[in-house]
Amino acid sequence: MPWSACSARRGACWLAGGADADVVVSSRVRLARNLCGYPFLSRATPGQRQEVIAAVRARLASTPLAQGLLWVDVQELSTLDRLLLVERHLMSKELAKGDLPRGLAVGLPDEQMTIMVNEEDHLRVQVLRPGLALHEAWQGASDIDDQLEGGLDMAFSPRFGYLTACPTNVGTGVRMSVMLHLPALRLTGEIDKVKRAAADMGMSVRGFYGEGSEATGDFFQLSNQRTLGRAEQVILRELASEIIPKVAEYERAARQALLSRRARFLEDTICRALGLLRHARLLTPQEAMGNLSLVRLGTLLGVLGGEAPGLEPHAVTQLLVQVQQGHLQKLADRPMDQQQRREFRAELVRGRLK
Amino acid sequence: MPWSACSARRGACWLAGGADADVVVSSRVRLARNLCGYPFLSRATPGQRQEVIAAVRARLASTPLAQGLLWVDVQELSTLDRLLLVERHLMSKELAKGDLPRGLAVGLPDEQMTIMVNEEDHLRVQVLRPGLALHEAWQGASDIDDQLEGGLDMAFSPRFGYLTACPTNVGTGVRMSVMLHLPALRLTGEIDKVKRAAADMGMSVRGFYGEGSEATGDFFQLSNQRTLGRAEQVILRELASEIIPKVAEYERAARQALLSRRARFLEDTICRALGLLRHARLLTPQEAMGNLSLVRLGTLLGVLGGEAPGLEPHAVTQLLVQVQQGHLQKLADRPMDQQQRREFRAELVRGRLK
Repeated sequence: MPWSACSARRGACWLAGGADADVVVSSRVRLARNLCGYPFLSRATPGQRQEVIAAVRARLASTPLAQGLLWVDVQELSTLDRLLLVERHLMSKELAKGDLPRGLAVGLPDEQMTIMVNEEDHLRVQVLRPGLALHEAWQGASDIDDQLEGGLDMAFSPRFGYLTACPTNVGTGVRMSVMLHLPALRLTGEIDKVKRAAADMGMSVRGFYGEGSEATGDFFQLSNQRTLGRAEQVILRELASEIIPKVAEYERAARQALLSRRARFLEDTICRALGLLRHARLLTPQEAMGNLSLVRLGTLLGVLGGEAPGLEPHAVTQLLVQVQQGHLQKLADRPMDQQQRREFRAELVRGRLK
Repeated sequence: MPWSACSARRGACWLAGGADADVVVSSRVRLARNLCGYPFLSRATPGQRQEVIAAVRARLASTPLAQGLLWVDVQELSTLDRLLLVERHLMSKELAKGDLPRGLAVGLPDEQMTIMVNEEDHLRVQVLRPGLALHEAWQGASDIDDQLEGGLDMAFSPRFGYLTACPTNVGTGVRMSVMLHLPALRLTGEIDKVKRAAADMGMSVRGFYGEGSEATGDFFQLSNQRTLGRAEQVILRELASEIIPKVAEYERAARQALLSRRARFLEDTICRALGLLRHARLLTPQEAMGNLSLVRLGTLLGVLGGEAPGLEPHAVTQLLVQVQQGHLQKLADRPMDQQQRREFRAELVRGRLK
């Protein structure tokens, strides 16, 4: 995977810029699809898995998508390369596991489009965009879907919609999500209220690394739960025009409240985070994430003007991805144990934040 | 008290340099004396207190000690001036309290000699020296004692020795103590063992501010407990030649062990402390003391060479005194509430450690 070391150095472009980037780090649309004529993967033989891969690759090759598309046989990747792809949000932990035939197509060079083959479903199409851009991400995913369906028969029921391995995805098969940065709501103690409100509106709230991961460093993935009986446009409108703007508004209000009523506490908290990152010689991933989150907030609120004049929020966000252990080992170009990673992580962060 | 603001800016000269200053910050000898013909202070009338003061001042005036000696009527001092003197270790909390006639003589400009009048005893003579210098401090205190006794009758029993208000001081009336900086013993978890061993040898171990104060920032006052039936020279030899060198040896061994076996942990711990002090916008006294202690260790071990090349241990030790609330208000030349002090403390420390 020769591009991987290069990617590790570059960060991830879906993390830089975009609309409402002060709160919405990135947007993602994922479609779950399965091919007619093949059993769901829990019942598929290795041979059938290979056939699914062959059919998908053949179809991809005959579409304009083939341009710049990298194919990866995941079962042949090293543990480190798998880790890197998971950390870059290009594939799921689930796809990374095991040795059965499975694959990943990545749209290079921007890595904003991926297709996982033989994950939970035969196909998982994913489009990532920086900032709040669910419409664009949806349009992108929908275009890919059209290209694929032009030559592949998808399992579809007129009554239920797209059929998927897990009933929670049946229907549209669509999951739309955004990565939110909500540090002020945590500092003001309102984050749990907002999370409960999101859950009440049928949203799920997960951590930086999706299902099963704790929210780390005040980054949360918010996504729709229901896929059945609701048109994509309805889900899209609800998320992009109602729920996310409302959460963003709460976060911005919390930031303003801190700035106007607890300015010194806020500055102290953020400057301490910067001080720790600039001076530590050993850094755990949790410490790095938690403190980078506060420094990102500082760059957004102009609190760090005196301490780190040129520091941009997206440079901090990139570091969030790069401090992960797979990225570190790619950057160092050597395998490292936990202690070595903590040293190298601290060195990397120090160098960037000086 | 016009010299006080100036003193606050200067720090305390008994904190800079001296023998074994890597571990022994300062040495102190205190003598307790009472005048014949006056009751102990618990039974003395205000008039008798005034007479004691008058007798002491008259005697002082007729000796060479009068040169450079400042007299302070403590009961007339502001709360802030009292606080400043306590923080500078020039008088006890006990002397600072209350409005009965009491006084303090301070040897200017170096503030290494003080005489408290009407504290627990009629007279408390104190000599401070930087580093391990108990012999010199003892000699200094003894000289003052000789000068005083040349014109004042002290309460003395041929059987018990000097008589004092509290039986624990009867005999020599001498308390010899050193301020030790033992950060490595805390980091290696051996500090409690050393404190127990010191107690077993008849020593008392107290905090930075003496009796009743918790040890703060790894600074401990170690002093003799017994005054009865033991000659000053015996106490002196035991402390200066046996106990203190042994504790210093333990601390140095712990520092070397950390340097050779846990170098990265040590560097991380110390650099984080420096990072916090350089970046915080609000600092409590405890945080300041705790982190300054680690930074002092860093300057002694050369761990901060890359981060703070010119920083000297004694500059850090001075800050330990100056971050106290009385000093801060003198430096700022205005009264400050807790929040204002935390801000000003952070500003002061940031400025010094940049």
